[in-house]
Amino acid sequence: MTTGFPPSARTRLRRRPQRGHYDEATIFAVLDAGLIAHVGYVADGQPLVTPTAYWREGRRLLWHGSAGSRALRAQAAGIPVCVTVSHLDGLVLGRSGFAHSVLYRSVMAFGRTAPIEEREAKRRAMHAFIDRLYPGRTRELRPIHDVELDMIAVISMEIEEASAKIRDGGVNEKEEDLQAPGWAGVIPVRTSIGAKQTDARIDSRVPFPPSVAGYAESARLDEVLGKTPAS
Amino acid sequence: MTTGFPPSARTRLRRRPQRGHYDEATIFAVLDAGLIAHVGYVADGQPLVTPTAYWREGRRLLWHGSAGSRALRAQAAGIPVCVTVSHLDGLVLGRSGFAHSVLYRSVMAFGRTAPIEEREAKRRAMHAFIDRLYPGRTRELRPIHDVELDMIAVISMEIEEASAKIRDGGVNEKEEDLQAPGWAGVIPVRTSIGAKQTDARIDSRVPFPPSVAGYAESARLDEVLGKTPAS
Repeated sequence: MTTGFPPSARTRLRRRPQRGHYDEATIFAVLDAGLIAHVGYVADGQPLVTPTAYWREGRRLLWHGSAGSRALRAQAAGIPVCVTVSHLDGLVLGRSGFAHSVLYRSVMAFGRTAPIEEREAKRRAMHAFIDRLYPGRTRELRPIHDVELDMIAVISMEIEEASAKIRDGGVNEKEEDLQAPGWAGVIPVRTSIGAKQTDARIDSRVPFPPSVAGYAESARLDEVLGKTPAS
Repeated sequence: MTTGFPPSARTRLRRRPQRGHYDEATIFAVLDAGLIAHVGYVADGQPLVTPTAYWREGRRLLWHGSAGSRALRAQAAGIPVCVTVSHLDGLVLGRSGFAHSVLYRSVMAFGRTAPIEEREAKRRAMHAFIDRLYPGRTRELRPIHDVELDMIAVISMEIEEASAKIRDGGVNEKEEDLQAPGWAGVIPVRTSIGAKQTDARIDSRVPFPPSVAGYAESARLDEVLGKTPAS
């Protein structure tokens, strides 16, 4: 049996079970193709959902922010969270309103937060994050100052349970609707890279560094991210 | 004073207050540029975050799904939720690791769910959703069957509190780092429309309908959606 995340009461897809995936390869592929997660937590009984950049190291998800942030202070205490990552891949237009849908890949991952508090561990985590986005970038930059590390909080979450849900393909239409006139089909959606904009205070002849070589204009962001190595 | 969402304890941005917005125009613009929201709710003390297509009618957000869905059944009972919408607009690379960042627009909206249960109200809601995405689409389609309406749940949430958080611009760098060598700048990110794919069971000469005219290839999804009228 492959290593995965055995479906649990909260992760098993009950409707359309063919869209559910519980293996590491599928779940990690959806996670590694993303940059922004939506982290859900509870404070005083109130659900809160915060969008944040994240990265993965093995079966852990990590994110960071200001040490003064309400969300990160709550999460530093060690609380249950739900981290959801989703990619919109297309719009589906059927011959009936009912057959209209969207194409997507998503993961819901459950676990409990743990802060990374030791300074050198934070430094390693931030290096891993920057180099995950821009391979080798940290070697192009000055070292991170200790005072900078002290200003941020880094949160990790061991994935206890997770599932991926993927809707791909095309129009799913009832047999009786197939003869309806008019157009039906898919409008693809993709998130992609634009033309790099050099900071105005830098000579425009300064070359792009090797760490951003993957971010070619028009490249798909999910493919660029999916190619950078996650540990 | 303009109509808005007066900042509350849970919506006021305390750090970087210049990024916070509480007016209807800004909040609605971020919401109307999006298709997928992340809806956070609590079940048995556990936070859950579900990605879902949504739409706005005035100061209400709406979404729908299978009547059998766990999330929608929980929400039909009337519970507090946090609906978060975010747009990734770019990657910021500074001269230091600390100045690396992302460009984004996001809204967190708080309220309590209420189901739309009456069949004709559900029909109106689903028409509004389809026509919000594809103006005039419902007139191109057969009527929705009652049995189809009975299979879905529609949830609405009056926005009680909301804030927008917007990070735009370029590299924010400490003065002492400005002399560092190497490249710094912004890599724009945009979510856009691909080439329409006609369903294989339809004659490829069937024209695209007027309702999808806005979805031109390479158009930005947020701009297409932002142009369709929200009531």
